[in-house]
Amino acid sequence: MKIVKAGVVAILISLLGMSCTPNGEEGSKALVKQASVPNMKPANEVKLETVEPAYWWAGMKNETVLLMIHGKNIATSEVQIKEDGIGIESVDTQDNPNYLFLNLNIANAKAGKYPITFKAGAKELTYEFELKPRNKGTKAQGLTSKDVMYLIMPDRFANGNPDNDSQADLTQKANRKDRDGRHGGDIAGVTSKLDYLNDLGVTTVWLTPFLENNQPDWSYHGYAITDFYKADGRHGTNAEYKNMVDEAHKRDMKVVMDLVFNHIGNGHDWMKDLPAKDWIHEWKEFTKTNYKGEALSDPNASDFDKKIMTDGWFDGHMPDLNQGNPYLAKYLMQASVWWIEYAGIDGIRMDTYPYNKKEMMSEWVSYVLSEYPDFYIVGETWLPGATWESYWKAGGNNRDGFVSTLKSVSDFPVWDALNRTWRNNWSITEVYKTLTEDFLYDDANQNKIFLDNHDVDRAFGVFNKNIPNMKLATSFLLTTRGIPQIFYGTEILMGKGGHHGDLREDFPGGWAGDKRDAFTEAGRTKKENDYFNYMRSILQWRRTSKAIAEGKLKHWVPFNEVYAYARYTDSETVFVILNNNKDEQTFNTERFSEVLKGDAKGKDILTGKSVTIGSEFTIPGKTAMIIDLSK
Amino acid sequence: MKIVKAGVVAILISLLGMSCTPNGEEGSKALVKQASVPNMKPANEVKLETVEPAYWWAGMKNETVLLMIHGKNIATSEVQIKEDGIGIESVDTQDNPNYLFLNLNIANAKAGKYPITFKAGAKELTYEFELKPRNKGTKAQGLTSKDVMYLIMPDRFANGNPDNDSQADLTQKANRKDRDGRHGGDIAGVTSKLDYLNDLGVTTVWLTPFLENNQPDWSYHGYAITDFYKADGRHGTNAEYKNMVDEAHKRDMKVVMDLVFNHIGNGHDWMKDLPAKDWIHEWKEFTKTNYKGEALSDPNASDFDKKIMTDGWFDGHMPDLNQGNPYLAKYLMQASVWWIEYAGIDGIRMDTYPYNKKEMMSEWVSYVLSEYPDFYIVGETWLPGATWESYWKAGGNNRDGFVSTLKSVSDFPVWDALNRTWRNNWSITEVYKTLTEDFLYDDANQNKIFLDNHDVDRAFGVFNKNIPNMKLATSFLLTTRGIPQIFYGTEILMGKGGHHGDLREDFPGGWAGDKRDAFTEAGRTKKENDYFNYMRSILQWRRTSKAIAEGKLKHWVPFNEVYAYARYTDSETVFVILNNNKDEQTFNTERFSEVLKGDAKGKDILTGKSVTIGSEFTIPGKTAMIIDLSK
Repeated sequence: MKIVKAGVVAILISLLGMSCTPNGEEGSKALVKQASVPNMKPANEVKLETVEPAYWWAGMKNETVLLMIHGKNIATSEVQIKEDGIGIESVDTQDNPNYLFLNLNIANAKAGKYPITFKAGAKELTYEFELKPRNKGTKAQGLTSKDVMYLIMPDRFANGNPDNDSQADLTQKANRKDRDGRHGGDIAGVTSKLDYLNDLGVTTVWLTPFLENNQPDWSYHGYAITDFYKADGRHGTNAEYKNMVDEAHKRDMKVVMDLVFNHIGNGHDWMKDLPAKDWIHEWKEFTKTNYKGEALSDPNASDFDKKIMTDGWFDGHMPDLNQGNPYLAKYLMQASVWWIEYAGIDGIRMDTYPYNKKEMMSEWVSYVLSEYPDFYIVGETWLPGATWESYWKAGGNNRDGFVSTLKSVSDFPVWDALNRTWRNNWSITEVYKTLTEDFLYDDANQNKIFLDNHDVDRAFGVFNKNIPNMKLATSFLLTTRGIPQIFYGTEILMGKGGHHGDLREDFPGGWAGDKRDAFTEAGRTKKENDYFNYMRSILQWRRTSKAIAEGKLKHWVPFNEVYAYARYTDSETVFVILNNNKDEQTFNTERFSEVLKGDAKGKDILTGKSVTIGSEFTIPGKTAMIIDLSK
Repeated sequence: MKIVKAGVVAILISLLGMSCTPNGEEGSKALVKQASVPNMKPANEVKLETVEPAYWWAGMKNETVLLMIHGKNIATSEVQIKEDGIGIESVDTQDNPNYLFLNLNIANAKAGKYPITFKAGAKELTYEFELKPRNKGTKAQGLTSKDVMYLIMPDRFANGNPDNDSQADLTQKANRKDRDGRHGGDIAGVTSKLDYLNDLGVTTVWLTPFLENNQPDWSYHGYAITDFYKADGRHGTNAEYKNMVDEAHKRDMKVVMDLVFNHIGNGHDWMKDLPAKDWIHEWKEFTKTNYKGEALSDPNASDFDKKIMTDGWFDGHMPDLNQGNPYLAKYLMQASVWWIEYAGIDGIRMDTYPYNKKEMMSEWVSYVLSEYPDFYIVGETWLPGATWESYWKAGGNNRDGFVSTLKSVSDFPVWDALNRTWRNNWSITEVYKTLTEDFLYDDANQNKIFLDNHDVDRAFGVFNKNIPNMKLATSFLLTTRGIPQIFYGTEILMGKGGHHGDLREDFPGGWAGDKRDAFTEAGRTKKENDYFNYMRSILQWRRTSKAIAEGKLKHWVPFNEVYAYARYTDSETVFVILNNNKDEQTFNTERFSEVLKGDAKGKDILTGKSVTIGSEFTIPGKTAMIIDLSK
């Protein structure tokens, strides 16, 4: 038995015989049901309200777990654990007596219950902390360039459970007529479409945040989290999310979770009673970030700009978290591990990565990888070029000493090059040029690549609804180095832009009573099916290609708007030719001889036909050929 | 005495008693005056025609010097040096018996004459090789950001000696009416304008190549060198060039020489009798470079593209040298050192840097720096962004193992940003953004920065002849990090573009009989004098500023088109505000408090007036302020 006194002067109160238990299995923020606990009305108002995480697991590699305990004057109590097995490393408080941070050593602890008592004088409050046996299911598989992510905004994809669209305890109610409102899509809807996605050929689903956003407005997008441990009731439950992950795994598919450490929604309970004065970045007057991630790696940057970048608020309703507070840092880090162990997710996409305290983020990634070495983490690194992206990627050698551990960055430079090529109609050389910057990365094949995402105008619209260009871009996306990501609806040529609420429109057929069901061939137009099948043919083949999964990239300087490249391993080669010229092009193939030995024979996976590449070759105008030389 | 037999089978011939001497002091390619040497008509035609370098210096750090000896069948002779002091490391031949490469060890040799005999049987040819005492004058001072280079194309600046405009032995004659012809400008003309340049405030002159270009066309620009050791007679003599350097040094000015290792003019003697089959890159059919320097650092690049880039020809009349031939490499390296020691130059600008064999270039830079540690070398690294530039700059950590030793690169990315700002009228944030990439460089203050040069349209025209913008750009160029370079005529608002021959037009007043003399105040228009004095005021002050010479850069994210930055040392600060907004801007100065302590007082060097920067500050529209807080 250990007794440790909390760090602030204890107000000794008599609470003898009190006991609290978490309110259910599922969440990890234990809302202690005080009303049901007899004698829970002590003098001087010492309360035990929440414990986070509500439980943990035995046998984790990291030897400690930090419990954040909230309750009026809880910091004034003495903490005891009567069961052997768990050690108390420290009991810390900050400047708010309503929070207590209990750092437990669980290195040798077995699964079981470990009641923690909070003693004030002769009386006690007890919390039944549990270490569960570890989750045995598939989890934390990680992603490689073999995978293709399908990005879903769950409110806008499919409404699997119309009964949960509005919730009594969540302020914003469903209103599908409001483009900026909640439309009712949910986790159950995603689960119901896994077969559709598997058939399309993507390997992974990435949902924008499904955690609680109890905000009066703009709650549909999920980036104003108000509870790190709980699914938003309008999306479903934690159990439904775990079920979705299990169902994905059954189909050999993977799940990437979206998390935000940079900010919370101002509806978060923390805003009513901040755990510490420095829990969030507060300013004399409201101060927005300058959104200038470039400043953070810039040796010439002013301290002023760097501070505004990381400590300014992303938006007025999104208080900016201070990851420099070590208790908050540990809280966030643990929450991510909790979701991996609980739900079995395979990766995390971290929002607004550079807006956080960068050293903490590196520590976080290392912490996760120490538990789950194959786990995939991609940062949203929305920066204007490979220069800045490379600063945030692991394996670099930054002169300022910053060591990033983030293996996958969001390849906005490639997205930008695609726009220069097919929005501005400059030249396909823009794409070539951007990939020549790969030497800044240790392994560009880990980069997440995309034609668009939930924050930018949809590619099909951006490319002026030009289907040949859209097909060229799609062929490129799915065969170049990197881990491709497709935004939901791209496969049916959804193409809106301009306003977020518009480009994040509902997938037709996701709601009962929709005019058409574009999840089915019959519900798609001829044009949509043509493009759908084009994309599907690449995706389905892609899953089988070793050259795509493991191969290096070799490319050639474009000529006459013809861009050719190979993905190759020792045993397999895929040769891709993108003719961005409206005219047919015939060319000598000698330049490719380092990859094509003699007359190269293969199968064009876009037509299914056999192809022989002789000393001369002709490709029609505005056409992609993906020639698998191993077929 | 050492006797070494050349590497090919010797044809022994009788040449007893022959002796050859170099034809004069000045050049280092000794044209052996065979007609004046008695008995110089041996059987079997063994000749001694040229020796390069013609002489060398005693007391150099590098212990060897390689003599390239040309003469019919010279490789068939035996070599002897009868004087003690010089050792023969090796006597090598390649596949052409007319060339012999004599590698001498001069580690312990004193200044003096060392006759070298070439023996064929009982007869001898003798060359009086000399090691001179080292040049004691100022030389190899190097450049720092304290300096400003003034780029002159000597054919187009000032004609100091009309008598040398055409030369009997040089094919192209002067024709000032031809924009692409030779106009007669020369070294003597530059020398005559050093006082003008010193008064303007630049510290350094960089002349485009003055070496012989004995080409029928396009010889005026100097980049088709036909003799690495000899000034083009139409520009003057080696002695005149040395005199120009001495005159510059007398004025505390410096000289940068322009060299080309990548290619020669096809009028070079080598093209009549190649020293080796692999001396130049030959192709089955004429093959141009792809000009894609990006390929050379690209891990995805095909071998084909890399080979085309370095081994393809820059132009049809410019044979591409193979720096992979070690004898050629040493020849080129020595020629550069020869010019440093002979003429006392302070820096070299190396043309088409990435088009050469990169490992050889690193070796070259190291070789020069081993003799002259302060020497300045800037490579023409015309690449589309800081990513690629950084690959070529010393102090990096390239993943492919390439170690560059080049300290100064040509900052084309900054030039490009200036164009986006004031040609495209995007935003001054383009300039800010480009400088945030500085973390790719070990020290961006070594980069050569410029508004334009001899290969691109002149900035004033590019900026639509907008004088306020031109002044903003000038203020930026002369106060940001880096070593500024100004193209001749910019100070009088020369602004042509489009065609090389046009933008390289003659400086008015450089020729006797010119309609006006813009080298004088009276010869300039009011508008020209206004800009001239604007630039001059910065340049003159700049030479005295420690913050400019040694200071770091700190800048702020632009707001409302106001870009502010400081150059600062521990003791001095210069604060620069560029208001690119057409309207006056008033702003709170709190963001600058890390540099401006309290009410900062200083002198605006553009107006000469005292300035106090309080908590608010107002700057007129389209105005630069350069506030020296130490004044």
